[in-house]
Amino acid sequence: MPRFRMTVEYDGTAYVGWQRQRNGHSVQAALEKAVLGLTGETVVVRGAGRTDSGVHAVGQVVHTDLTRAWEPVKLRNALNAHLAQAGEQVAVLDAMSVADDFDARFSALRRHYLYRIIIRPARLALEANRAWWVPKPLDHEAMHEAAQQLVGHHDFTTFRSVHCQALNPVRTLDRLDVTRHGDVIEIRASAQSFLHNQIRSFAGTLKQAGEGKLTPADVRAALEARDRAACGPVAPPEGLYFMRVDYPGDEPQSDL
Amino acid sequence: MPRFRMTVEYDGTAYVGWQRQRNGHSVQAALEKAVLGLTGETVVVRGAGRTDSGVHAVGQVVHTDLTRAWEPVKLRNALNAHLAQAGEQVAVLDAMSVADDFDARFSALRRHYLYRIIIRPARLALEANRAWWVPKPLDHEAMHEAAQQLVGHHDFTTFRSVHCQALNPVRTLDRLDVTRHGDVIEIRASAQSFLHNQIRSFAGTLKQAGEGKLTPADVRAALEARDRAACGPVAPPEGLYFMRVDYPGDEPQSDL
Repeated sequence: MPRFRMTVEYDGTAYVGWQRQRNGHSVQAALEKAVLGLTGETVVVRGAGRTDSGVHAVGQVVHTDLTRAWEPVKLRNALNAHLAQAGEQVAVLDAMSVADDFDARFSALRRHYLYRIIIRPARLALEANRAWWVPKPLDHEAMHEAAQQLVGHHDFTTFRSVHCQALNPVRTLDRLDVTRHGDVIEIRASAQSFLHNQIRSFAGTLKQAGEGKLTPADVRAALEARDRAACGPVAPPEGLYFMRVDYPGDEPQSDL
Repeated sequence: MPRFRMTVEYDGTAYVGWQRQRNGHSVQAALEKAVLGLTGETVVVRGAGRTDSGVHAVGQVVHTDLTRAWEPVKLRNALNAHLAQAGEQVAVLDAMSVADDFDARFSALRRHYLYRIIIRPARLALEANRAWWVPKPLDHEAMHEAAQQLVGHHDFTTFRSVHCQALNPVRTLDRLDVTRHGDVIEIRASAQSFLHNQIRSFAGTLKQAGEGKLTPADVRAALEARDRAACGPVAPPEGLYFMRVDYPGDEPQSDL
């Protein structure tokens, strides 16, 4: 069966998350329903990464198999028409035909995420549900310095959810950069794969570093404790964006 | 009575517009209700400009009179707490005490608006309700050239709503710039005041210029026709943002 790879954007606010669940509407189910509406086929749409309820995606990547060799542009447009009709906050940005050994999850070389914090005294209106609102100043340089303690090959037990299903808590974090643009602090994280709640756990701990409550050495000690209790409060989902996934043979892309 | 000036941000999607109306919830009513909740006073909050349903504000300016000489930071924070509790998509960004001859509408020297168009094949998910989605390419340089025909002191009858209540259709348009950043086209408009639907009428006509359907000379002729029928389709409200208002004595601000 022809296999298709698609890039998907969504506003995660109204969804239970990427993954199909009994207790609410998921992004995965929205896409599978659009495929059913278009083709009459009941498929599984597999994603490169699970995202929690409230987490957004600019570049989630998925794959699925269809019986017909759809022209990719027509497939994209037709799925978007079905998503629009259903009132979904999901868009298929592009579609392409891929070899049947392509797997959105297992072929991924690197995943890129962005966590956004907005620092200002006033609550958020236009950016409500799109960023973590922090009403007090944060020292983004201190946050960046603390973040560098986490880059590299480590056991990240401290920074994963107690519900994390990964067998191995060791990951290689390639990048954890903190920058500031006006009142927006951006945390950019890249790795081949992440543990459940890893980036939100980083963001919560780095916020404490930005408040002066934790030094870089404290963050290092929290990592080395390999103890969930050493982690700061987990940051809320609405600041997190799944930005991009790299696969073998993809064109190099500009830095995110 | 002490008079206060406040800068207000809102997501206009769920509102009937700035102005109080019988048929739905307005931003003005949301603010007046917050003042009532805080002070027990039934006030009128006056805005620098009316915005239609679906139009957003980053920097609407309002004034109102209160019996107590509130400390402005406390006033801002308390109003935001009331707005949050009511689930409003409205935020008070700052508040200040002003002389009682300050009037948000009549003291305004210049108003600044932004209209955002996103050009891409796929429907919008994260930017739904935040921009006008146009699925086909537009020539932003042609749009900018056409826009320059509109700058200056003109009778803008062609570019105002038939419902516009202004007695005089003559206005001085100081700026109408079109730029492109990635897949976002930004139209920035500045004038002391605008007619009803003027910027959305500009955006609709400039889109036709970007499609190659209208030349700059055609846009000039439409202006000179002084005839609403010469206007292209009015652009939808969700692309429009009320950005800022300038008043006498304000600190100069960086260009928007």
